[in-house]
This record gives sequence, structure tokens and C-alpha cells, in this order.
Amino acid sequence: MLKRQTYLSMKNLNDARQLFFSKINIDMIREIEVLPVEKTLGRVTAAPVFAKISSPYFHSSAMDGVAVRAESTYGVNERKPKILELGKDAIWVNTGDPMPEGYDSVIMVEKINQIDELHIEIKESVYPWHNVRKVGEDIVATELLFPQNHKLRPYDLGALISAGIFEVKVWKRPKVAIIPTGSELISYKENRIEAGKILEFNSINLSSLTKEAGGIPIVYDIVPDDESKLYSIVKQAVISDAKIIIINAGSSAGSKDYTVHILKSLGEVLVHGINIMPGKPTILATVNGKPVIGNPGYSVSSIISFEQFVMPIIYWLQGIDPPERKKIKVVPTRNIPSKLGMEEFLRVNIGKIRDKYVATPLPRGAGVLTTLIKAEGIIRIDSLSEGISEYEEVEAELLVDEKELINTVVIIGSHDICIDIIADEIRKKDNIRISSSNVGSLSGLIALKKGISHIAGSHLLDLDTGEYNISYVKKYLKGMKVHIFNFVLREQGLIVKKGNPKGIKGIKDLVRQDIKFVNRQPGSGTRVLLDYKLKQINISPKNINGYEHEEFTHMAVAVDVLSGVADCGIGIFAAAKALNLDFIPIGKEQYDLIIPSEFLDDPKIKKILEIIQSPRFKKRVESLGGYDPQNSGKLFFILQ
Amino acid sequence: MLKRQTYLSMKNLNDARQLFFSKINIDMIREIEVLPVEKTLGRVTAAPVFAKISSPYFHSSAMDGVAVRAESTYGVNERKPKILELGKDAIWVNTGDPMPEGYDSVIMVEKINQIDELHIEIKESVYPWHNVRKVGEDIVATELLFPQNHKLRPYDLGALISAGIFEVKVWKRPKVAIIPTGSELISYKENRIEAGKILEFNSINLSSLTKEAGGIPIVYDIVPDDESKLYSIVKQAVISDAKIIIINAGSSAGSKDYTVHILKSLGEVLVHGINIMPGKPTILATVNGKPVIGNPGYSVSSIISFEQFVMPIIYWLQGIDPPERKKIKVVPTRNIPSKLGMEEFLRVNIGKIRDKYVATPLPRGAGVLTTLIKAEGIIRIDSLSEGISEYEEVEAELLVDEKELINTVVIIGSHDICIDIIADEIRKKDNIRISSSNVGSLSGLIALKKGISHIAGSHLLDLDTGEYNISYVKKYLKGMKVHIFNFVLREQGLIVKKGNPKGIKGIKDLVRQDIKFVNRQPGSGTRVLLDYKLKQINISPKNINGYEHEEFTHMAVAVDVLSGVADCGIGIFAAAKALNLDFIPIGKEQYDLIIPSEFLDDPKIKKILEIIQSPRFKKRVESLGGYDPQNSGKLFFILQ
Repeated sequence: MLKRQTYLSMKNLNDARQLFFSKINIDMIREIEVLPVEKTLGRVTAAPVFAKISSPYFHSSAMDGVAVRAESTYGVNERKPKILELGKDAIWVNTGDPMPEGYDSVIMVEKINQIDELHIEIKESVYPWHNVRKVGEDIVATELLFPQNHKLRPYDLGALISAGIFEVKVWKRPKVAIIPTGSELISYKENRIEAGKILEFNSINLSSLTKEAGGIPIVYDIVPDDESKLYSIVKQAVISDAKIIIINAGSSAGSKDYTVHILKSLGEVLVHGINIMPGKPTILATVNGKPVIGNPGYSVSSIISFEQFVMPIIYWLQGIDPPERKKIKVVPTRNIPSKLGMEEFLRVNIGKIRDKYVATPLPRGAGVLTTLIKAEGIIRIDSLSEGISEYEEVEAELLVDEKELINTVVIIGSHDICIDIIADEIRKKDNIRISSSNVGSLSGLIALKKGISHIAGSHLLDLDTGEYNISYVKKYLKGMKVHIFNFVLREQGLIVKKGNPKGIKGIKDLVRQDIKFVNRQPGSGTRVLLDYKLKQINISPKNINGYEHEEFTHMAVAVDVLSGVADCGIGIFAAAKALNLDFIPIGKEQYDLIIPSEFLDDPKIKKILEIIQSPRFKKRVESLGGYDPQNSGKLFFILQ
Repeated sequence: MLKRQTYLSMKNLNDARQLFFSKINIDMIREIEVLPVEKTLGRVTAAPVFAKISSPYFHSSAMDGVAVRAESTYGVNERKPKILELGKDAIWVNTGDPMPEGYDSVIMVEKINQIDELHIEIKESVYPWHNVRKVGEDIVATELLFPQNHKLRPYDLGALISAGIFEVKVWKRPKVAIIPTGSELISYKENRIEAGKILEFNSINLSSLTKEAGGIPIVYDIVPDDESKLYSIVKQAVISDAKIIIINAGSSAGSKDYTVHILKSLGEVLVHGINIMPGKPTILATVNGKPVIGNPGYSVSSIISFEQFVMPIIYWLQGIDPPERKKIKVVPTRNIPSKLGMEEFLRVNIGKIRDKYVATPLPRGAGVLTTLIKAEGIIRIDSLSEGISEYEEVEAELLVDEKELINTVVIIGSHDICIDIIADEIRKKDNIRISSSNVGSLSGLIALKKGISHIAGSHLLDLDTGEYNISYVKKYLKGMKVHIFNFVLREQGLIVKKGNPKGIKGIKDLVRQDIKFVNRQPGSGTRVLLDYKLKQINISPKNINGYEHEEFTHMAVAVDVLSGVADCGIGIFAAAKALNLDFIPIGKEQYDLIIPSEFLDDPKIKKILEIIQSPRFKKRVESLGGYDPQNSGKLFFILQ
């Protein structure tokens, strides 16, 4: 019979951290090593460092010039110059040279006339020790150079050497054992893709995060779902020199989740289940005083659990506190409900529009790793909160430099892959980021109106005039001044399975009873186009099986077709091509960029317009297939 | 005859940078390499990266539970549960498992009653694709994962793998050739100290800075002062695979500074001499299109020149902009004059006192590396400015995290090595920094009054009462509420050469004509003590040879004695011990910490008091010799 377990009573994040960290004796676990100075960059001192010698170690010339005896210059000035004999009264010295015995000051080269090889003329008097670096000017022997727990920066290393120190006691970088588990996994190291197998990639995330924190990841081979095998591997890891052990995954309550049993039998399970989202199924345990973490399997959960429970320990083992993310105030672009009783880590896009930072939520799935990649920040929604509302100023933790936010152009509206091409082209020479949210054309216009974006991508067809975007802009952006630029003409059509097994020929086939259709949401340009086409040939939506089944992006439609959720959907050629599906064109449509006129002076926006007008961009767009860039960047309409 | 040269007409910093960078063709110099994903952490993409496969790669269960056909659950609810047969109607799945063929949704394990090994009871109906992660939920094949010039973060690597990408095109880390020159140098790699030789440590600074910027330093053996040798080494470096060549030093106008000749004969010297301080003698040249920098010899100059001219190129060669230092507004603690026509990089200590960041200038010498180490920031004083004034708010570039400034306790006053012990002890468990400036006792009290420090260290003897500090505090801190805590009792005395060659026995010998004395500045506790002792035995200062020769720290006095500037000086035992000098005690004195009462609730200040009361601290102080910690941390006096 399969074993099933439920979570121990779930703990909140702070309680879980406090309990877990209180059971770990950092001082007992961490170790010291002695390294030559040149290997200590970024390492942390494990003991105070006192200077062994002074620097300079002897009196030395502070200038290029001649060393003299100060008293031999007394009385000399511009009107009473003096000739000195080289080798007797004066000796050439370069900066840093030891002062010759018996000489106590230096006259700069610029203030000397050389008479001949043996004589110079001076025109000033100097006092003793003038232009001389005395012993200890920089460092005095015995002085404290660095306290313990100081992270060594590049020029700290030079100071160590100049203080006569060639070796430093530093905290050892802690080894972190990472044990991937799961019979369904194949290692990314095999460099291959296999149907029905999942590429194991959490371990590369966890080992990279470990490296970034200064630890040394020890990644084990994938352990299949076999309790006794996992038991022996974990036991082996616990007695190894790893200071922290991570088991990924098997931390939830599934039938093959042995981790909690194993940890109970080897040591003490402190926490199983934490009310954070993502990250809930984390297990926190100690075995022989070592921290052992049952890390969740979903990629985002896995990362958040690592950051909350493993990362701080890695830093503490090196004598320093973990860095804190910068926080800024942001305004959400819409209401964001959240589950009461769970602390949520909501990934958001952030951009600066006029003088406000606006935050648009990204998908919330625990397995959607790309949300972390696309996000500029994380909003943490307290477990006691039911969410945040549209105009409520809240705090966001930044995942990028604040400077990057200022260099971010926010594009909200209909999705098109050509926006990715702008994003790529603009990174070639300029440090500008594109943050794009795909919400459909109409919502893009509304975002402009709400002041939460710089640009809207839109392809809204006026059913009466047959003209794109203008009437919608007039209606929805009333009172605003905007410019409309042509972006691309693109092929819309029906996306069908490879080989078109149902023999679909066009729109009129959508009424066939054997065809399941997938639609786009109202307000999207594609939906408007479909409705226009249906009206032209007098087909009622009621007769289409799946007309109410709506998706929000071209890609989601294509995925539905690929996966058999639907036989046919409406979308652009690029989406069909991406998933290797077939495509039946139904017509070209005009996709434009709508930009408030006030932004046209912004160098970022100028850059974007430059790019879309460039032959290079047009060439790339053309090569995608299904696009016509002939008018890209042309001014189409101005709304005053 | 020795060759002498003068600087080409000096350039200002911006002109020099502009000219130099405009002559370097980054695109021509930089190279691409293809690396396995696991080696790309922190590397920068050299081409856009598009997903090869979708993620998930197949439909998979989003939950632990049973896979079912949605239609077999229709009509089921709490009051109408249904029994399903395992293996036929339902199949156990764990999170991430592929959906079994023919099943389209998942019921969570928590919502299932297991009846026996073959049967389960369900109490809810599900819709198709419920709890299923569809193909491409995270990543859709062909989508842009990263534009070019994207620096890969830890979880970016996981995303690459999950998109089926095992290798990435990244910019090669550029090699930087670093050529140390100078016959007076010995390499730090020899791990030894030699009289009259300078330990070469600029190359460890430059190579560490190179590493930090992502470059690969290639450090050459030290080249002696020999023009033809240097010529052939530089030529060799230029044709090597190094992308940037740094010659350190030989960039100034000294007789052995061949660098500029060599570069003129090999390529084009663009700039020689820049009006920055430190950093003036920098040479900027190109040879065969490669940047070659004649880097100045003084350690701080060398670093500033690197940061201004080399570091940006290293980043650009990797496709990214150099990071910018955070800037904050600070208030200088005193007037800071600066040389007109020179842009100065002034190192400053910064601390937060009440609600202001106050900045205290550190010594300005181009060779005083410890100023960079102790500094929290740099104030750049424009070449058109003659300096900044005491209450003028100016910008400082931060060398530490802003958070660290809040964790910094500013101690201004008399110097004592026991403050270093606090600084070390407080870093053991707490991330608190001590920023201490040594200006003498009285100036320390004035700093408290001006509100630019947290604590003053003081040992001011009242000549009338024989009591320490109280009368001074009453006079100079009138109107403030302060607490005075005993810190240490310490031995003052005369510092003399090792073996006491002049047979000095005590204060009364200071009038001997064969003895050159070195004194401390007025306002220092030590000066007050000396004057008190002189008065006691009726010696007039006029009769002491060197009474007017003043230094600002104990260590400076000791250095004067060591170097023969003086035969004898007044100071504490620790200073004599540091330089291995002899010491003739003249009496114990009381060194106290003066703290405004309002700061006593500050956890940082509490921590300091805790430390100085601890047996551990007292033991360390005692072991130094010349100290008596019996009263350390005792409250001595309160000024209300």
C-alpha cells in the first residue's frame, strides 16, 4: 500500500526561520583556512589582521627629483639660486626610491635646472623631510588592518602585502550537498532531451545560487525514487564534509516523497510545510547538528525555499550577513487578490512611468521559472492580507538594479514576437530593457490611459471603417495626445495540428461539429478580427464549438492545439511556427505601436523608433515568416 | 645624460576618457566563446537566446494526486461521492509526472479517500486540464529567453536547461596584461621582506580589480628599469592575446620612466598627464588598436587610474556597462580646500549622526592606500572648485553598502589602539563598523558638539583639579546631556630609540641640548599631560629643543623617533611597542569615552558598552601592555 502523509501543522515563515536557525550552531560548523593573500579576494577574515611591518618600510622619496640635505638649501630662493654638485650635495631619486643615507629632503624635478652632468641649479629652499614619505606614513606596524569578518576587497589585498602579510586566515567556503531525486528526471549533463522525461534543472539553479553566496556546491547524481537508496545517499551526505544538505525534491506529500521519513529516522524534522507561496512543501531538519533541507520540486518554490533557509546559513558560515534586496515603493497596475493565511512571493514587472514605479503582476505558478527571469521585483503579500488593491502603494524587493528600472521601457498590450526583436536589438549598444506584458490590444490602450505603460501594442480593427486602431484610440485615449506608429503587418489565420488532420480549410469550417475551437479573449485584436470575419460570412458565434473557450495569448492558443485541447484556434503565423503546427492564413492585419506624445523626447523611446525603422530590424522580422515590415516605424496618425 | 621629460599638456578627466575610449574599437577587440550552461554563471550572452523546446515539454501533473478523465467526475460532489478504480478510472501521479495517456485532469491527494489498494473515493468533479501543467506553461519553444548582452543570473541557468539549451554563446572574459616595473621592487610572491626594497603590491590590486570586473589578469614578472627590456616585454604583451595592457609604473616624468618613449615608438600616445588627484601621471595610448595604459606608481593613483580608464573597457568587452557607485548627500565635518585646476578624489569617512550623513576627510596622499580601505566614500571635487565648505551638502560616491553606514559608529577624538579592539570584537557577532578619526581629545569634544560623531575618546587632565575630562566636558559641551564612561587607564611616557642611546631618564632630561624632542598638538590630552608634568617640576617649554615640533598621533611621534627626526617624543606605551622602540613611563592617565545621553538607547552604542565591560575585552587590553582595564565601562560622570 502506498504511503501517504500530510504536512505537519504548517508554520509561518518567520517562525520556521527562527526555529530552524536556532537549532544550527554556526560556530561549531564553520571552519578556518589559511590562504596566500592573492587567493583571498572576496573571502572573509576569520581573525583580526594586524600589520607586520610599516609601509613605507623605509624613508622614500615622494617625488621624482633630487635628494638633498635641507640645511644645504637654506637661504636659496628665486633671486638667490644655488648650484649643487650631483653625487655630493644632491642625488637623483625617483618616486619611491629609498632616501640615500644622510639626505633628508627632495626637490622636485620640475624645479631644477640641470647645468651639466655633474651640476644642477636649485631655486628654492626646503625643510627637513620635505617630499619624503616617512616610515609608516601609510601603515604602522601592529595597527589593526582588518577586523575579523571583513570581506576582502581588491585593494585590501594590496594593503595586506604592503603590511608584510602574505597569508590570511579566512572562513572556509562551505560545501553544500545538493541531491536531486526523482525517477522521472534526466540530468542536464547528459545534454539530451527525452520524451516523457523531465530535464533536471533545479540543481543548476541551486548550485548557481550556492556559488553566488560564496559556497561550494557538491551536486550528487540523480537519485531514483527508491527509499533505501535515498536513505543511504542522504546518510552519506550528512557524514561528508558538506555543511548543508539539500534534497530536491520529494518534500511534499506525494507517494514517492520519502524525504520526511528519512530525515525523521536520521535526525530531527523541525518543520514540514510553511505557509509561503511558492515554497509550501519545504522540510527543515537537522541531522548531527547539520542543517538538512527538503527543498520543493517546483522551480520557483525551490529557489524561494533556498533563499529563505539555505542562503543565510551559507553567508553566516562565512562570517557575514546575507545581502538584503533593495526595496522600493510601487503601485500595482491592478487589484491583486491573495490567499489569506499564505505569504505570497508575487513576481512583478516594474517600470517607471512619469514619476511612479508601477508594478504589473506576472503569472503566479510555482513552476513558472520565467516569471523570476522576467520580473524586476517581488511583492511579498503578508499571510494576514487578502491581497493588495490597484492604487495602494506597496513595497517591492528589487531583483535588478534600481538604475535598470529607469532604463526600462514598459510595453503593455497585444503580444508580438517582434517586440522581442526590439528587446534584443536595443541591448546591443544600449543598456535598455524592455518589459512587456501581454494583455491584449484594448487592455493595452487602457494601460496607457492609466499611466502604467510607455507604449501599447495594438491591432484593433474598426468593423465599420475597416481601419486599424484610430477609432479605438480616439475613444479610449480621449484627452491624451498620442502618436501611432506602424509596427508590422502580420498574417492572422487558423492554427491547426501538423498535417491538418481534420482538413480545415477556413473560417467557414468552424461550424463543423467535429471541430473544437479555441478563441481569444474579448478586447484582443485577434478576437475583433475573428468577429469581423464571421460577420462577413454571416456565421453566428453560437454555432462554433469552443467559441467561449478563451485564451490570452497566441502561444496559449497554439499550445491548446498542440495538446489536443482544441483542434483549431485563431492566431498569428509565428505562434504556429513556434510549435511546429500548421497554419491557414485568413488575412493580413496592421499591428501598431501607440505612444503618448510626451514620451517621444525620451531617449529610450527615440531609440526604439530608430530600431524599428532600421533595415536590420526589418530583415530580422521578415525572416520570421508571416510578417511584412514595409511600413515599420512610419507615423500613421497623431491624436492631438 | 639622464633623460627628462615633461607631461604633454594635461587633459581633464572627461576629455581624456572621451579621447581614449573613442580610439578603441570594442567590437573589433572582443571575442565570443561557447560554453556549457553550467559554466556561464555571471557571464554575458553574446547573442540572443531562443528556447529550443517548450517547458514543460509534455503535459504533466501539477499536484500529487490521481489522474482522472474529467468527464468521469461530472456530477460528483460532497453529497454524491464516487468510487473510482485505480489503474482504470484513476492513476496515482506525483507532481511533475507525465499525464498518463487518455487522462486529462488531476484530483489532489488531500481530497481523496483511499478505500483499499484498488479503490479511492472522490468528492469533487474537475474540469478538463484541471491541475495539469500544459506543454509550454513556462516556456514556449522559439520564444526569446534572453537578449544579447544579458548577464546570466543563477536561475537563468535553470531556465536555459529547461528550454533545452545546453550551450550558450557568451563574451570571452578579456585578458588584461599587468606589467610591474621598477628595479627597487620585489615581488610579493617571494613572501619576504628586504630592507631598501619595496614590496610590489600594485599588481595584486590591479589583478584583483580586474577579476572583480570579470577580466582575467595576466601578471608579468617585475621588469627592472631597463628601457630595452621593458620595450621587448611591452611588445610581447601587445601581440599576446591580452586585450588591455597595463604598465605599472614608470608613467611619470622621472629619469627611469621609459613608458612614454616606448609607447610612442610602438603606437600612439593619446594622453600623458591628467588633472586628477591622485592619478595625474597616467599615460593613455593605443598600440595596434589595443588600449595600453601607463598606470601611476602610487597605490591610490594606480587604483583610481584603473577605475577610470581600464575598468570600463573590461566591462564593455563583456557587453555590459560598468556598475555605478551609489551616491548620497553628505555634509563635510570641516572646510576642505582643494587645488584649483585639479579634480580631486577625496577619501572620506561617512557616518550617520542623527539624520545626517557626515563626512570626515582622510589623508590625501596618493600613496596612502589605507585611506581607501578606511573610507566609506569618495567626494569628487571638481577641477573648477577651490574646495568645499563645512556645511555645504555635497555628493559622495559610496565604497560600502548604504546599509553599512547606518551600522557605523563614528568615534572622533584621541586615538587609542583599544578602539581597534572594540572594532574587532563588535564584528564577531554584529555587522557593526567603527569609523574612527584621530584628531586629539579636544577636537573630539568639539566634534560631539558639532553633531558629527557618536562618541569622543578623551584624556584631558584638568591642571587645577588633577581630574580627567569633567571640567572640559562641562565647558565645551555646555547645554548637552552626556555620559562619561571610563575606557582604559594607560601608561604615558617618553618614547626613545631602541637601547635608549642618549640615556634619557625622564622629563627633566628634555632640556638637554643634545636631545631633539617631538611634541603633540595643543588640545591633545598628551600635550596637556606634558605641560602639567613640566609645570610640576618648573621647566619652561622654551628650554626644550623641539617643543614646537608637533605631530597629531602617537604613532607619528614614534615614527619621528624611529626615523631620527627626533631623539625622544611623548606618547603611549603601545606606540613605542609597535615600532620596537624603548619607553620611559611618566605616569598613568585616564582615557574615557564621552557619549551624548540621547545615543545610549542606540543598540550599536549599547553593544559597545557591553563589549568594553566584558572580561574578554579586558583580557585583550591587558595583554597589550601599558594598559589597565580595571574600570573599563564604568559610568564615571553624567552631565545633565
